[in-house]
Amino acid sequence: MNAADVAGFFAEWGALNPEDYLSLDYYLECSGDPRQAAAHFCSEQSTAQWRRQGVDEDLRPRFAAKVVDLQVEATLSRFTYPVDCPAAGPVHACRLRIAHPHGNFGPRLPNLLSAICGEGTFFSPGIPLVKLLDIHFPATYLAHFEGPRFGVAGLRERLGVYDRPLFFGVIKPNLGLPPEAFAEVGYQGWLGGLDIAKDDEMLADMAWCPLAERSALLGAARRRAEAETGQGKIYLANITDEVDRLCDLHDLAVSRGANAVLVNAMPVGLSAVRMLRRHAQVPLIAHFPLTAALSRLPHFGIHSRVLTRLQRLAGFDAIIMPGFGPRMMTSAAEVLDNVRACLEPLGPIKPSLPVPGGSDWAGTLEEVHRLIGGVDFGFVPGRGVFAHPLGPAAGARSIRQAWEAIAHGIPLARQALDHPELAAAIAAFGPLPATGPASAGEAS
Amino acid sequence: MNAADVAGFFAEWGALNPEDYLSLDYYLECSGDPRQAAAHFCSEQSTAQWRRQGVDEDLRPRFAAKVVDLQVEATLSRFTYPVDCPAAGPVHACRLRIAHPHGNFGPRLPNLLSAICGEGTFFSPGIPLVKLLDIHFPATYLAHFEGPRFGVAGLRERLGVYDRPLFFGVIKPNLGLPPEAFAEVGYQGWLGGLDIAKDDEMLADMAWCPLAERSALLGAARRRAEAETGQGKIYLANITDEVDRLCDLHDLAVSRGANAVLVNAMPVGLSAVRMLRRHAQVPLIAHFPLTAALSRLPHFGIHSRVLTRLQRLAGFDAIIMPGFGPRMMTSAAEVLDNVRACLEPLGPIKPSLPVPGGSDWAGTLEEVHRLIGGVDFGFVPGRGVFAHPLGPAAGARSIRQAWEAIAHGIPLARQALDHPELAAAIAAFGPLPATGPASAGEAS
Repeated sequence: MNAADVAGFFAEWGALNPEDYLSLDYYLECSGDPRQAAAHFCSEQSTAQWRRQGVDEDLRPRFAAKVVDLQVEATLSRFTYPVDCPAAGPVHACRLRIAHPHGNFGPRLPNLLSAICGEGTFFSPGIPLVKLLDIHFPATYLAHFEGPRFGVAGLRERLGVYDRPLFFGVIKPNLGLPPEAFAEVGYQGWLGGLDIAKDDEMLADMAWCPLAERSALLGAARRRAEAETGQGKIYLANITDEVDRLCDLHDLAVSRGANAVLVNAMPVGLSAVRMLRRHAQVPLIAHFPLTAALSRLPHFGIHSRVLTRLQRLAGFDAIIMPGFGPRMMTSAAEVLDNVRACLEPLGPIKPSLPVPGGSDWAGTLEEVHRLIGGVDFGFVPGRGVFAHPLGPAAGARSIRQAWEAIAHGIPLARQALDHPELAAAIAAFGPLPATGPASAGEAS
Repeated sequence: MNAADVAGFFAEWGALNPEDYLSLDYYLECSGDPRQAAAHFCSEQSTAQWRRQGVDEDLRPRFAAKVVDLQVEATLSRFTYPVDCPAAGPVHACRLRIAHPHGNFGPRLPNLLSAICGEGTFFSPGIPLVKLLDIHFPATYLAHFEGPRFGVAGLRERLGVYDRPLFFGVIKPNLGLPPEAFAEVGYQGWLGGLDIAKDDEMLADMAWCPLAERSALLGAARRRAEAETGQGKIYLANITDEVDRLCDLHDLAVSRGANAVLVNAMPVGLSAVRMLRRHAQVPLIAHFPLTAALSRLPHFGIHSRVLTRLQRLAGFDAIIMPGFGPRMMTSAAEVLDNVRACLEPLGPIKPSLPVPGGSDWAGTLEEVHRLIGGVDFGFVPGRGVFAHPLGPAAGARSIRQAWEAIAHGIPLARQALDHPELAAAIAAFGPLPATGPASAGEAS
């Protein structure tokens, strides 16, 4: 590109109609001139060739993605990760903000993905390393999306729970139990205090545990638990399957007794989720397989908050995501980015309940609550409930006892003195984490 | 896990029924004992908890993924890429082969993805870096998949072309032209010798170029070109859109005159492609947005050949993939891995035509042909045809002239002497690459 070509891919944000553009933030590492690289980057993700041969035209004013901010953050001697792309000279680490005209493709998730993290993004000359960091949508674009049908408020209404986190539990053993045994385990979890007992994300509609029978037995167990506890309960059935079975499996599971459905968002595809959202009568909950393959590395891929925003847009009422602690290899800052992406204002789109998870048990609840700084989240132990030495009901009770302590400012170790289920959880899964004010108080 | 727990996740391949298992190859970097890490890795992707609390049972013999080979390739002082996971002691770089029981989830693409590259794979304790390198399926599993309806042979039959590569061209300008102008450009490409003129992967069904009108005009232009050239032609319409529109858009495009459809595989989702395959009456062609975000880094993510195998399984008749040359930041070895994944035997599943692409023009054809070592591939220039200085017909002619030279062992530079379109291509897009025997001969 010559200088005039490059200039055609730059603009002042203030000179554009903000309703016509998505705002996209990227990290990128380029060899060569950063301005030239940024122009190519915009060209590749929009009008790669902006005039016909022999015709005097310029399609860029309407169709080009445009650089609205370019910051060179550092100059490196080589790319951060070795890749099959020779660097010609020094490498520039840049932050780029792009105005991308959504009129190129419309309010369609596959086309959106193709434009913002497709061939153009990952095959721009001299830019082997790039990470899509964030995305923001104008109101006119958001207006085309349905978003969650129930959202946080709707989920709370269905359970009658307004002043605390929602307690999920992943029924374990996750694979291999027949429906009767699986239902009994779930029932114990509800009795002990779970709000939501859920299928594992890998549990499918298999002959050894068919969804129809599972939903019927879990549905009956759920109603029994509701009657016995006087509290609303949810059986969250995993209907992840081929796209053309999703709506039928939703109907099947719901007609038998499931009152929410789980879908593995990326393996099924966000667009299929949007299709299901238009059909579904119960809350949709996302699980996170495949997302880490896109998001784990700091300098390549797609930031998880972008995937969270898109899952909310697709219509999930709750989004299970990698949570806090070293086990999930995700920084607290990134988890909080995702929590915010669920809850912060997004035009007419309702909030989704964030459910950060991974090897949680009664002892990790305090820190999760402290870091999130509120009660609008889901807590989702697996073995922390279902491998509790006194059984699943005791496992669920240990979670509720931990919450009771947190809500009343009682140190967990003190609470454990007269709550044997919590004491047993600490003995089995502990020690209690050292962080968090109450724990710190107890330790001192 | 204790030693007995670990042993429960190891097996001899020969002692298993091979029809019950997928074979999965992973690269991983772990801190701590590799055998312990490998056992956890299998546990996390299958039976994370293999017995109920208080019940004497072991679900592993039937449901556990099992290590069948573990090789420590190197010991490193730190993880290859810095990540949010502290390494306790030295890091072991390992190759792992796993036997994964497909009876856990069945012949369903979303559930397959959830099992082989989901939470278990990317959140196994002490294994922050992992790459799924390859997958192999037993015949009983493959028997459930439809695969391509037409495959390489079917595509060739539709065009009446048996002895050479198929020549695709991406109509450019890719975004912004109204249907009339777009059709005229495509028509010129066919006249010059393209077999297949295609929409860009970012071109959607937009008011400024509606699919209905585009298909009608391109369909008419295609038939005109067929009549004038006496050769079969394909208009490949991009129907990438929300999942619940795919079948309708296929019907719309085909009824108006498209005779193949393009789908961005990962943005739409492989399962939605499989749904479309059951419905479609024309060849399905894959484009590759999002794949590089998963596959580019050597030590993390998912190898592109896995994604290629899955696209073939989902039913694509041709798979456009990042091609040769530094522009596409993909090693020749990886491109060839993907070519083979398209063409090699796969039980009852037909071959898909590999279409390696990226900034190709007449001068790059020889090297692509030499590297692939056969004619079963598609060649897919964009600007190499549509930004040719003498126009798209001349651009397409330059490709055919290059092929004629290659087929007859004529050096391209010599062929250009009496083929002005090829000469103009070399002047505009050259110089000719130095590699390849004919070019080398010419240069000497």
